[in-house]
Formats: sequence, structure tokens, C-alpha cells
Amino acid sequence: MSKKVFAVIGTGAIGGYYGARLHHGGHDVHFLFNSDYQHVINNGLKVDSHYGDYSITANDINAYEKSADMPKADVILVALKTTQNHLLEALIRPLLKPDTLVMLLQNGIGAEQEVAEAFNLPYVGGGLCFICSNKVAPGHIDHIDYGRITIGVYGEDGIAPLESFAKDLTGCSVEVDIDPKIMDARWKKLLWNVPFNGLSTVLDSDTAQIMDCQELVNLSKDIMMEVQQAAQTTDTEIPTSLIDTMLGNTAKMKPYLTSMLLDRRNGRELELQYMYKNAIELGAKGGVSMPKTTALYEQLCFINKRIVSTVQ
Amino acid sequence: MSKKVFAVIGTGAIGGYYGARLHHGGHDVHFLFNSDYQHVINNGLKVDSHYGDYSITANDINAYEKSADMPKADVILVALKTTQNHLLEALIRPLLKPDTLVMLLQNGIGAEQEVAEAFNLPYVGGGLCFICSNKVAPGHIDHIDYGRITIGVYGEDGIAPLESFAKDLTGCSVEVDIDPKIMDARWKKLLWNVPFNGLSTVLDSDTAQIMDCQELVNLSKDIMMEVQQAAQTTDTEIPTSLIDTMLGNTAKMKPYLTSMLLDRRNGRELELQYMYKNAIELGAKGGVSMPKTTALYEQLCFINKRIVSTVQ
Repeated sequence: MSKKVFAVIGTGAIGGYYGARLHHGGHDVHFLFNSDYQHVINNGLKVDSHYGDYSITANDINAYEKSADMPKADVILVALKTTQNHLLEALIRPLLKPDTLVMLLQNGIGAEQEVAEAFNLPYVGGGLCFICSNKVAPGHIDHIDYGRITIGVYGEDGIAPLESFAKDLTGCSVEVDIDPKIMDARWKKLLWNVPFNGLSTVLDSDTAQIMDCQELVNLSKDIMMEVQQAAQTTDTEIPTSLIDTMLGNTAKMKPYLTSMLLDRRNGRELELQYMYKNAIELGAKGGVSMPKTTALYEQLCFINKRIVSTVQ
Repeated sequence: MSKKVFAVIGTGAIGGYYGARLHHGGHDVHFLFNSDYQHVINNGLKVDSHYGDYSITANDINAYEKSADMPKADVILVALKTTQNHLLEALIRPLLKPDTLVMLLQNGIGAEQEVAEAFNLPYVGGGLCFICSNKVAPGHIDHIDYGRITIGVYGEDGIAPLESFAKDLTGCSVEVDIDPKIMDARWKKLLWNVPFNGLSTVLDSDTAQIMDCQELVNLSKDIMMEVQQAAQTTDTEIPTSLIDTMLGNTAKMKPYLTSMLLDRRNGRELELQYMYKNAIELGAKGGVSMPKTTALYEQLCFINKRIVSTVQ
């Protein structure tokens, strides 16, 4: 079997970290950059990590500014924020072979199905990254902690390539869990993300402040139960005990600023379509209304409009 | 018929204005003060008004620091914020005669019933003041505009005393509408107050900003329809056309800062019990759930806790 070709679309805190680990493990990795391109072809890519620092020199890195210049890939890691997903069609098409595994390392729900339908692919994978990693400067990533990734696939036939990719990752010392149906994994992550990302963003508060207010604990739980019911419409069974466990863990956690609140504070567009709109629409399609989730989403739309109009 | 005795409980922007108008019309008015007492017995009460300025001199004013010192009253005007209603029992009891008309000039819903039950009164009146008036200094009220008052009564037998009070007001050039059942008037005012006070407070925004965001218009309308349904449980019929009219008018209004948002910005406790909790409980008692109103209320509880903990 010839060596696999990996493409990383969006070389930031997530894509840069996992791409560099694959490169470190000896794989043939090709990185797409946006604003960092010029810096990287001059200086290479640098990943500080508590697992050991690793750099790819300017000589060694396969860096690209346009996906059309990249080789066709066996695995495409998409690590853009979902607010950029309108670009995916153009970015992915040049890289596809008939059996390419597209892996969406993104938040929210619904993107695998969209990509599968857009390219008529038999399967599309997804990954949930439990990682603390930041891009601190052009071509410079600071991986602070964790790194475990849960992967799954949308479509019946994707298990074999998914397992093969899991082996690639574990061979590079990345911890991997397989949750075969990616929808299951995504709903379970939404169970927490929908209430806590949204409420923390609307109320400009950390998780400890939320858990310290009984009314907000009640609201969080109600929203989680709406997500639980919406998940059932796509055959994802979430036990109620998981809701209680998550709330218990959140109450014990150190005060935590959600990624969406950080996006708000930093004036970055919020990931509303995949984290809220798609979930609400999936629920509605299955006859489940989500009034409290919808109310939260509508407030977030208001906040997002302020952000976007300031950015422009 | 001997001259009526009026008592004003809470002589601020509202109580001071209407009390002064009654005094100006020749009525026997007795004012309860809190922090302004010492100032008023030295300097009197001053009302600047676009209907003509009016002062009651220190010599002429019937000012009190304790309600126990006041004479029993024919009409008690309660103009405290509802956040002070836990004090009503002690403040009102000394002033009651068997046929006293208590008039609650307050926001929200449910206080008339509470007061009627607490004192075993056959009727309790309420008033909704459409007025722009501020207390700008101790004993100094600035009445900027409007002043119309809608009054009604809780309890079957109160119409005669209510109409008599309405005549007193119109005799003092106060415009009065009678909406016989006070619950009808209160629900109709809540129809606007529940969505717009709450959303403007949570999102720190004026009415124009809210109406400029289609998702928030949708959310406001959904909340209004919840209030409409809750109102039906107490036999108040609100036509859907009123919702559309109110939304249309709000879209045309100049940007407006709601009273609750001003309370938030000024670090004052929010009027949540009478404007939200009672409405939700009345709905629930009649089998109407109000999920979007409840979600908004729970967020407001969080904001209020921050305010109250800062005040203490």
C-alpha cells in the first residue's frame, strides 16, 4: 500500500496541531494556509506542546496558499471554523479521490451530511477534539493540554477508512475514541455546548457563575432535555443520567469560559448555524420543538449581528 | 359627604406627581417619605411639570416618616416599586378603614389580589401610569410628559369607589381611562412589557435595536403569544391584532430604553416577581406553559442576582 496523503484545510490551533503530529509520525502531510502562508514558507510551522515541542522547517513543510495547488488526498482534515463552511465546496473539490475520507474537525452538527450531499460522497467523517490549543502567532501554535479526539462517520461504508485513520492517529500518539455514528457523538457534545455556550455568551458569564444560579441550572437542564429529544429524531439515544452527570461535572469544574463567549469577547463571528440552527431544524424535521433553545438562538443571532456589523 | 383623605405611600416620581396634583385640586393629601423626609419638612415638595410647576411648602405639606403616624385614609395610593411590596402589609394596615380604596400604581400583575387577600378587602384598585416623570433630587420631581392613568379594580364591588376616585383625578386635570377589571389592563400592559423589558435588559439594547433584528421580532412575538394565552386563563381576551399593532408601533417608535434596562444600568433591583414570576404562575395554574417567557425570566434572575449582590 502506498503512503497515504493527508491534506489539512485550515492550519490553525486544531489543524496545525494534528497535522504536525501526523507529520511527526512520518506521514505525508500537506497544509493549506490563509494569512500565515508567507510567514510559514519563510519560517516553517512551530508547535509548542506539553507532549514535546515540534517544528516543521520551511524546507520540509508542504505549504499551500490555494487548495488547487495541493495533491489529491486520502484523508482531508477540515479544521476551519464552521462560519467558513461556505468555502468548503471550493476548497475540498480539487483534493478529492473516489475513496477520500473527509474528516470535519469542527463544532456543531450537520456538516458531514452537507458535505456528503454536496460531493455525492458515500461517507464523511467527523471529529470532536477535546484539546486546549491556541494559535499565538503566525505559524506558531501553543498546545496547552489534552488532545483526545472522538471520531465517527456519516454514511454506512465509512467504518473501514475511519478505523484506518484512527490507527494513523494512535501511531502518532494521539488518543482516539471511535463513536461509529458521528451524529451520536455530535449530539452528545451539543448536549453541553447548546446551553453553556449560549447562556455564557448572552450573559457574559463563566460556567461557575451559571451553575451558581438555580434558575440558570433549571434553564440549562430544560435546554439539555430539548437537545436530548431532538437527538432521538436521528436515532441517537441520550440517557437522562448523562444530563445529570454533565451538570454535576460542570458544577465541580473550575470557572470556564466557553469558546463562544471567547469568540464574542474577541469580536469573532459566532458558530450559530451548526451549533444551533441545524440542531433546531433537525428537531423540527422530526416533530420536536425546542422553544428554550430557539429563544437562546434568537438572542445569539442578535449578538452575532452586532459582532459581524462591527467587523465589517 | 366629608372631604376624602388621600394617603400617598412612596412619594417619588409617580406618587409625588399624582399626590401633588390631588393637593393642587384642593384635596387632603398625606405623603409618606423615606429618605427624603427631612428634606421635605424643611423645604417642601417641588414638582416641575410641563402642565405648570407646583410646590407644596414645608408649612403646607402633610409629610410623614412612618405610616403609623398618618390618618386613616379613604384612598391609599401605593407608588412603591414592586420590589418593596414585602413592606406593604406594615405600611398599609394603619391607614385602613372598612371602605378604603387601595390603589396600586405599580408594574406587573398579581399585587391587587395579594393585597385583597392579605387584608381581607372586598376590592383593591390598580393603576397603570403612562407618564414620563423622574425624581431628580430629594423632594424634587421633574414631570417631563404624559400623565394619563388607566385604572381598574380587583373584586366585584369596587366600581363605585373606583369611579369616584376617577372623578377626583379628572377634577385635578389628570386624564383617566377606566378598564373595569384591572387584570385586563395589567395583562395588556404585560403583553409589551414582558418581551421588551426582558430582552432589552438581557441584551442591553434599546427597542429600535431589537426591532431591527428579525429573530428578536420573532421571539418577541412568540413571548407575546404566550402572554396572550396566559391572559385567557384569567378571562382576559387579547386579540392577536393587538400583538401586531404593538409590534408595528414599536418598530415606528424612536429608540426607547425600557424601565427595566434603566434599572439594570443604574444597579437597581429588577421587578421580576410581578412582571414575570406571577404571570408565569398564573399561566401555569390555568394549564398554559410559557417556555420562552420562562427562559427569559430565568436569565433575568441571573442578572438581578448580580445587581443585588453588588448593592449589598
